Amino acid sequence: MIRFFARSAPVLAIALWLLAAGASAAASAPAPPRAEGVLDLMPVPASVTVREGRFRVDERLTIVRPDEAGPKDAPKDRAFRAAARFMTRLAGRTGLFLEQDFLASQKAAVGDGIRYTFARPGRLLPNEDESYTLTVEPAGIVLGAGTDIGVLRGFETLLQLLSADEKGYYFPCVLITDKPRFTWRGLLIDVGRHFHPVDVIKRNLDAMAAVKMNVLHLHLTEDQGFRVESRVFPRLHELGSDGMFFTQPQIRDIIEYAGDRGIRVMPEFDIPGHSTSWFVAYPEYASAPGPYAIERKFGVFGPAFDPSNERIYPFFDAFFKEMAGLFPDPYLHIGGDEVEGHQWDANPAIQAFKTKHGLADNNALQAYFNSRLLKILTKHGKKMVGWDEIFQPGLPKDIVIQSWRGPQSLVDAARQGFQGILSNGYYIDLCQPAETHYLNDPVPAGSPLDEGQKALVLGGEATMWAELVTPETIDSRIWPRTAAIAERFWSPASVRNVEDMYRRLGPMSLALEELGLLHIKNVDMILRRLAGRPGVKPLKVLAEAVEPLENYQRHGQARYTSLSPFTRFVDACAPESPAARRFGILVDRFLAGKDLVAGHELRTVLVRWKDNHAPVLALLAASPALREVEPLSRNLARACEAGLEALGCLEKGESRPAAWAEERACLLVEAAKPAAHAELVVVKAIGRLVEACAGGPK
Amino acid sequence: MIRFFARSAPVLAIALWLLAAGASAAASAPAPPRAEGVLDLMPVPASVTVREGRFRVDERLTIVRPDEAGPKDAPKDRAFRAAARFMTRLAGRTGLFLEQDFLASQKAAVGDGIRYTFARPGRLLPNEDESYTLTVEPAGIVLGAGTDIGVLRGFETLLQLLSADEKGYYFPCVLITDKPRFTWRGLLIDVGRHFHPVDVIKRNLDAMAAVKMNVLHLHLTEDQGFRVESRVFPRLHELGSDGMFFTQPQIRDIIEYAGDRGIRVMPEFDIPGHSTSWFVAYPEYASAPGPYAIERKFGVFGPAFDPSNERIYPFFDAFFKEMAGLFPDPYLHIGGDEVEGHQWDANPAIQAFKTKHGLADNNALQAYFNSRLLKILTKHGKKMVGWDEIFQPGLPKDIVIQSWRGPQSLVDAARQGFQGILSNGYYIDLCQPAETHYLNDPVPAGSPLDEGQKALVLGGEATMWAELVTPETIDSRIWPRTAAIAERFWSPASVRNVEDMYRRLGPMSLALEELGLLHIKNVDMILRRLAGRPGVKPLKVLAEAVEPLENYQRHGQARYTSLSPFTRFVDACAPESPAARRFGILVDRFLAGKDLVAGHELRTVLVRWKDNHAPVLALLAASPALREVEPLSRNLARACEAGLEALGCLEKGESRPAAWAEERACLLVEAAKPAAHAELVVVKAIGRLVEACAGGPK
Repeated sequence: MIRFFARSAPVLAIALWLLAAGASAAASAPAPPRAEGVLDLMPVPASVTVREGRFRVDERLTIVRPDEAGPKDAPKDRAFRAAARFMTRLAGRTGLFLEQDFLASQKAAVGDGIRYTFARPGRLLPNEDESYTLTVEPAGIVLGAGTDIGVLRGFETLLQLLSADEKGYYFPCVLITDKPRFTWRGLLIDVGRHFHPVDVIKRNLDAMAAVKMNVLHLHLTEDQGFRVESRVFPRLHELGSDGMFFTQPQIRDIIEYAGDRGIRVMPEFDIPGHSTSWFVAYPEYASAPGPYAIERKFGVFGPAFDPSNERIYPFFDAFFKEMAGLFPDPYLHIGGDEVEGHQWDANPAIQAFKTKHGLADNNALQAYFNSRLLKILTKHGKKMVGWDEIFQPGLPKDIVIQSWRGPQSLVDAARQGFQGILSNGYYIDLCQPAETHYLNDPVPAGSPLDEGQKALVLGGEATMWAELVTPETIDSRIWPRTAAIAERFWSPASVRNVEDMYRRLGPMSLALEELGLLHIKNVDMILRRLAGRPGVKPLKVLAEAVEPLENYQRHGQARYTSLSPFTRFVDACAPESPAARRFGILVDRFLAGKDLVAGHELRTVLVRWKDNHAPVLALLAASPALREVEPLSRNLARACEAGLEALGCLEKGESRPAAWAEERACLLVEAAKPAAHAELVVVKAIGRLVEACAGGPK
Repeated sequence: MIRFFARSAPVLAIALWLLAAGASAAASAPAPPRAEGVLDLMPVPASVTVREGRFRVDERLTIVRPDEAGPKDAPKDRAFRAAARFMTRLAGRTGLFLEQDFLASQKAAVGDGIRYTFARPGRLLPNEDESYTLTVEPAGIVLGAGTDIGVLRGFETLLQLLSADEKGYYFPCVLITDKPRFTWRGLLIDVGRHFHPVDVIKRNLDAMAAVKMNVLHLHLTEDQGFRVESRVFPRLHELGSDGMFFTQPQIRDIIEYAGDRGIRVMPEFDIPGHSTSWFVAYPEYASAPGPYAIERKFGVFGPAFDPSNERIYPFFDAFFKEMAGLFPDPYLHIGGDEVEGHQWDANPAIQAFKTKHGLADNNALQAYFNSRLLKILTKHGKKMVGWDEIFQPGLPKDIVIQSWRGPQSLVDAARQGFQGILSNGYYIDLCQPAETHYLNDPVPAGSPLDEGQKALVLGGEATMWAELVTPETIDSRIWPRTAAIAERFWSPASVRNVEDMYRRLGPMSLALEELGLLHIKNVDMILRRLAGRPGVKPLKVLAEAVEPLENYQRHGQARYTSLSPFTRFVDACAPESPAARRFGILVDRFLAGKDLVAGHELRTVLVRWKDNHAPVLALLAASPALREVEPLSRNLARACEAGLEALGCLEKGESRPAAWAEERACLLVEAAKPAAHAELVVVKAIGRLVEACAGGPK
């Protein structure tokens, strides 16, 4: 297979890379079991039975609340408000002028309609009952749950059932019984490295609710910013935030908004490292003399609290007392990750302290720090959560370990009886495909844990680290991929069909727009600003074939800081291009069976991309900010030319000599190189086409 | 000219209508003085001198603050923060990684850069100095002003100067001296009829600042909602808002955000009418017995405060004391419009009160009410503002009359020494063309006022009444048309070239997007939701030819309430379609001189619209909510067929018999009828084409 590349090592490497890429894409693209009437539910419920019949949606639709409570009680009634939001979104999608005043009353004018019931108000705690049963019959819909939180989850499912036929809108008749697999289904938003104001948080809370997530983890402090108002120590936010922080009323607003959607808000104050912004106000608490300035660059930095400084503990006592009052969640996250220890090593007083207290190394010093913090948190009624590094023997069993380094730490913790949540594998800032996250399981099939230990794995969290995102782009880095992660956390472990996940991810992405998310619509906006004109079609066509560099590669392309513009072409590119993904599938389908239909579509796409270069050049001429994409566009055109040659050759059943293939492989290697902080992700699939028609006479 | 239509009266009416429309379009479309290098500034400054040379923008650009104040003083420094926002937007547009840490310091690394200076902090009051001088030279830029508010205005101008050539970005060398023509340049946002939360207000404040507006008028109470938290009378917002109101911290946040942009916030509490939502909590203050419920419908309603009820005055005293503390602006608007008086007439006690106090009619009763209110406002340090209806002899000279009924009331007021602001003619909710508002002048050329009286006209306000808008659509009803109004208020009276205004309005509209406005991007979102799929091109093509019904016609199409969906096709259509406007201009250009280029473009557009019907039908099949647009699409196709016939005939220098024209005129009349609450606005121009080739042998 790779014979024709064997002459030089680099070319061989390319060939292996092409092969590996091809194999991987083929493995990830089994033909999905696609049938008429398949539902688009996401996350997939625990049990769905589709029945005959349709419940018709028209203007007379009413929603019936469980009791006779009047509008005066409405402000306290979470399910009532969720029902009103449901009706608003339903009206929005259908354009129907619903007759019921669903804000003021939820009584049926006639017998038909939607009835919801629940046994008691749900509490915002882990292991709360979120189950529900949804019965759609032609004559009416009943949504029943143990708690009002279950009702909220059920309304999201019902809205996803909305369908249309020639007569109008309807809900298909179903019986759904549903409950989550994991009780901790979180999204971390890092407001430290880039601040994200209340409206960003609120629209993401709405999106979380739409996919049944239930924990918003606010990463509130970082080297780059201290993002919450402290009234006890106001210099913290005054000097550490550039004026970009949540006021306490805003925090309360966020918590209320989240609670109304059945979502907990867990704050994180990352200490003892990641703490430069604290030291702008309080350099005396650091392990090295100041002064300190808010960090602008990204990475792991030296500044850390000085555990040997006895004055920091009353400070944390007062600070966490204040924060414990502000955040009602029983859990409080103290970070604890990536303490480099350089400041500790360089400070003789700290070294003496370690010796005096028999602390063998910096890990032991951090454990000492944590044990002091634990007392403070316990005093203020909070359970401690921290990253892998905080795990140490002797901690109480109600703490939670959040794993960023790998699933093994969860296994280790569970074996010793500790609870854990998984974030390793859910780093959505790395711009990996949804599939990667989707197949990552907090308790994978081969887990060595017993059932009791498995139960200690509470769930997981997607983590939106914010080095490279702003309020303009953050939605596109979170959504729609996080919907796939939400499904991993909610749906049965057996729900793992990647193609079916992607089939449902498309409609889900569109549905998220009604909640105000900007993940789709800001693409055009960014491109319009770059081009300085309303028409940006060529850039959109180019973006089909381009994705931002994955993992941490982008940091190698420029010295990014928190002040850098995130308004370039790469920032308009989706982390995962559906068009590029489809292209890869088409190539495999075509190569697997010389599928003529696939070949025809491939040709159309290749021609579109190839012919796109000239219009792109016309746009670049007027926009210096766009000129960096010229190599991407040029290389795409060249790669597509090679792809078209190969396609023509394969369609005719011909092959090409090795030299031809080698030349094109070199061209493709060039085309695959990063440019404008992004990469042409369709080159690998084009390489498979080229490879397939190689091997003719030398 | 109209001979061939003479046979029947209806057809004659059409002909006259076609003629009138044609004449109007022709009058509004003089060929603009278009030259290379014309600046896109909006509003046009008082004086601009363009010079040779360019100031190059690169990563080394620095901005230099006027004094040596360190970062610790930054939170109090409005100009500093404006400079930082300027740098952020500049980086966003250019993609440049600026080297200066513009959040922390604004000192020049080298000599070159942008320097700003001002004499003193500006006060948020009418008649404050907002002037500035901007000098761009190849070696540096100097922005000088009397107040920091002037600096803010100058930064907006500078950003609008950003240009690009083959070498990169630059500012052209200019000398600009600028100041506003009117001191009161407002935008009213009605948060009563539909609530618009903080993020909507903030992004619109950013947009206002971009076009140098300086008053946000918040219409906080209406029949449909009481939208501000009262801690003195919490039942007002608790029962009167459906939970949709601004908390007091949110109000303070808005005021601070506005002040940071040199914008005053004036609250309006509309009394004694438009007050149903107050009476949900306090039915005893109404002029008829309750109970009352929040009004859902739109219109002018009966409920009004009872001026004869002595208990309302202590209530207002306590309420306005609270609100006077919350809102620092010296002006407080008491509404006063559209008191129907039905409740007053039906209440014997009120009739007796009128008799007792010698109040001849309901106007006199309202004047009595206002005089009591005036005492209360004065006591709490506020000057009274109200709609036309509050004007009465004997008021103090520091009140302000806001004219909604017509400019005559401003003339009347000024002649008696009273200040006024104009809103008549700036009702942006009516979906009229920007031109209409642009040519409406608070002090028109023929004003009968003397110079002293003219000075009493402080300016004007665009009014965004919110019957038919939601947070999703409100931006598209405000922008970009309000930029034309902002220019009317800021620029010299002589700046009246409509074509040049439209030329600059396009780039202005794009520039507003960087501030988070949704006026462009939500069009696609609404259409995607309706279609249930990502590709909506046919709907966008249709929308080119369609506008929402103007004025109050939409209310005649359906029983709109505050709960109705505003998510239909009409809600995605811009109040003024640039494509339709251009089409009308092309028709006139073609007809004026048989311009072949215009004819070619006309043909392209007509064919695109005609061929669009089949793709639209394909989308409608899957979307019941879209089916209402079928007549629009069908009629557009038919009208374009007629237009193409006429165009072909005219290009060949032929004419068509009267019967042919009459038949097409009837077709066009049909096509011009409202459908889906919208109308085909290109039909008139097509009618001019048809008319022009009519008149051949009978």
